[in-house]
Amino acid sequence: MAFKTGDFVKVEKDGAFYEGHVIPGEDGYITLKMVGGGYVAGFLENEVSVTLLPPVAAPPEPPKQVVRNTAKGAGIKIAPSGKKITIITTGGTIATYLNPETGTITPSFTGEDILLEVPELDGFADFKIRDVFSLLSENMKPENWKELAQAIYEEIKAGADGIIVTHGTDTMTYSAAAAAYMIDTPVPIVFTGSQRSPDRPSSDNHMNIICAARAAASDIAEVLIVMHGSMSDDFCAVHRAVKARKLHTSRRDTFKSVNMFPIANMDYFTGELTFLSDFVDYAKRGENELKITPTLEEKCAIVKFTPGADPAIFDYYVEKGYKGIVLEGVGLGHVSDNWVPSLKKAADQKIPVVVTSQCINGSTALGTYETGLAMREAGVAEAADQLTESVLVKLMWLLGQDLEYEKVKELIASEMKGDMSSMIID
Amino acid sequence: MAFKTGDFVKVEKDGAFYEGHVIPGEDGYITLKMVGGGYVAGFLENEVSVTLLPPVAAPPEPPKQVVRNTAKGAGIKIAPSGKKITIITTGGTIATYLNPETGTITPSFTGEDILLEVPELDGFADFKIRDVFSLLSENMKPENWKELAQAIYEEIKAGADGIIVTHGTDTMTYSAAAAAYMIDTPVPIVFTGSQRSPDRPSSDNHMNIICAARAAASDIAEVLIVMHGSMSDDFCAVHRAVKARKLHTSRRDTFKSVNMFPIANMDYFTGELTFLSDFVDYAKRGENELKITPTLEEKCAIVKFTPGADPAIFDYYVEKGYKGIVLEGVGLGHVSDNWVPSLKKAADQKIPVVVTSQCINGSTALGTYETGLAMREAGVAEAADQLTESVLVKLMWLLGQDLEYEKVKELIASEMKGDMSSMIID
Repeated sequence: MAFKTGDFVKVEKDGAFYEGHVIPGEDGYITLKMVGGGYVAGFLENEVSVTLLPPVAAPPEPPKQVVRNTAKGAGIKIAPSGKKITIITTGGTIATYLNPETGTITPSFTGEDILLEVPELDGFADFKIRDVFSLLSENMKPENWKELAQAIYEEIKAGADGIIVTHGTDTMTYSAAAAAYMIDTPVPIVFTGSQRSPDRPSSDNHMNIICAARAAASDIAEVLIVMHGSMSDDFCAVHRAVKARKLHTSRRDTFKSVNMFPIANMDYFTGELTFLSDFVDYAKRGENELKITPTLEEKCAIVKFTPGADPAIFDYYVEKGYKGIVLEGVGLGHVSDNWVPSLKKAADQKIPVVVTSQCINGSTALGTYETGLAMREAGVAEAADQLTESVLVKLMWLLGQDLEYEKVKELIASEMKGDMSSMIID
Repeated sequence: MAFKTGDFVKVEKDGAFYEGHVIPGEDGYITLKMVGGGYVAGFLENEVSVTLLPPVAAPPEPPKQVVRNTAKGAGIKIAPSGKKITIITTGGTIATYLNPETGTITPSFTGEDILLEVPELDGFADFKIRDVFSLLSENMKPENWKELAQAIYEEIKAGADGIIVTHGTDTMTYSAAAAAYMIDTPVPIVFTGSQRSPDRPSSDNHMNIICAARAAASDIAEVLIVMHGSMSDDFCAVHRAVKARKLHTSRRDTFKSVNMFPIANMDYFTGELTFLSDFVDYAKRGENELKITPTLEEKCAIVKFTPGADPAIFDYYVEKGYKGIVLEGVGLGHVSDNWVPSLKKAADQKIPVVVTSQCINGSTALGTYETGLAMREAGVAEAADQLTESVLVKLMWLLGQDLEYEKVKELIASEMKGDMSSMIID
């Protein structure tokens, strides 16, 4: 089976057929860029039969001018909000196109392109565009979080009634959490992105942008993540950013609120918000004064415990001068008992260690088992039901404020910006 | 509010009341051992009002003889299976009691105690007990996995028609995955445990043991995890161990199959199995010959990428002589581009690096973005939709077999024991 890059082929596997262009891939695999702008799929050569098909036209060049994709949002009517909204772009899939040379997806769109793509938003608000980065989000770093928070702050200070940040989904939780801890905001700050690039028929960019715009004009003055709420094009979930996490590599409803419901669901067609719990209070527009505290201690890390792991792995961070450690334990937050002396060593050096759980859902509870009690005695703080990802950002932020060690331990284990319930619930 | 350890108090918070005994806790918190054998809860002192109540009798001593808790399983009838089943105990919550001195839970039960606790199983099978460890599972290590696999193997060789392993839930996935890769089995090997200690009314030990026993007598000759399938006492899920993960710190239905349905659900009252997919094939009783390969290369680790993380974190493992690395990336498996040279260095030293995703759900797909292509070119293997936890165990196991570097990379990215679909699916 000798096929070369660019060949158009049909792969048969277990009775199913897949068509696409051969692209470079791993040895032993035949790697296809699937038809229809789909993902790349690798097939083990010895598990499939492959037939060469007559060549078809090469994938089209990326459009120089974005096509107004009216089909996607047909029928959606949006009344003018009278609001000023700034769209801040940072890159990510929502701002990409398919590179037919490599079969991969490359950043390229600007905020202008995004607006062109969503004609329904004409007249909805007085939009301003600010292109800050053009990064795939795996390349975002804490220094970018600071710059982004600064840009958001400046736009609100200059009069924006709401902010949309378009961002790659891979590390959106981190950047949004950084904005949440750094900025006290009187207006909504809405992060959105997409899981499928705009060239694909199943792209979620259109619906996500429309819902994000409505959220930016809404009364919910928090840092939010607004993305597909289900696998269909029916509603978006409005997540509190510090409580939301990417939980699927490719599904469009990848973001889920963890240990709480989303604040609301938003109907795609009507824009109607359904609030999901009587217990969730959210900050209202105008309730908080604008303020920014954009300092971070970046030398913090997440350490994930695994069974039998050498405590030297933990010691490494202490020895290398890390200023704070998020320790992702198993179950209620546990590590094995031979890690406890290392936790004690960190405490002796006044390095805050905050325990979260790899279970993701639920709360740490170190008072339940003897292992947990020993960890507490060694001086760790508990994240309770906070997300590991936001805890890392919060720890960087707290350590950036020149607080005493004990104060950092107290605050990291306390509710801030709606990031935890103050009680451990069974 | 000066309360001392042992005081019986009522805490009021946001209109709700909680009663329990004060136990030592963190400064600024009032920490309660809740009434009813419940979990420990910490309340921020400045958020609650606390009233001293008249003392009640101290919690009872742990029973010397286990009480037959017939109330829990009332009405369950189980017909004799005629099978020989060995119960192997390793510790964990399912074999614990509440220590009233510390308010924590301590390992204590043996296999005999477990059988006494579940009288419905009288006559169901010819039970044999083998107590191997008495460990909380956070203290299980790869050397324990080997010893456990050896014990399972010996019992099957000696004629057992099915095995039940009782195990702590925190690291059950790892131990069960080790058994799955090490043992080719002609009979079911069923891991079970509990999320609530047997002294608690809501303990799941009773139902889980009954379902595990039926699974051990069933036709599904795989390594399984059998635990509550919902928050009620209605059915257990029968998970393929290498595809199941603990996903809640305290809920009884904490285990979820990831990227597949459980093989089946089992009705608690009737024992009936409902198979959940036509697509999932499972190994049938007697289909495979008994065989054990209990060697592991333990010097392997999981490295979790976070935004802006120093590539020196990855380099540490290479420098310290780790033989294999599971790299938990973001999204489709990404790390930032400044990590790519470190990946290349590992490949140059023939250290296999296997990429999984922190999203947990979905599949890695490094062919989609340029970052992923660069990672592939640096020589990483892709776990596709395998679980990070089982991939670590599989990597240790493959590296224990004296295989070439390229062969390890090939096999870690291939289906084994039902641990992945061989194709990356959108």
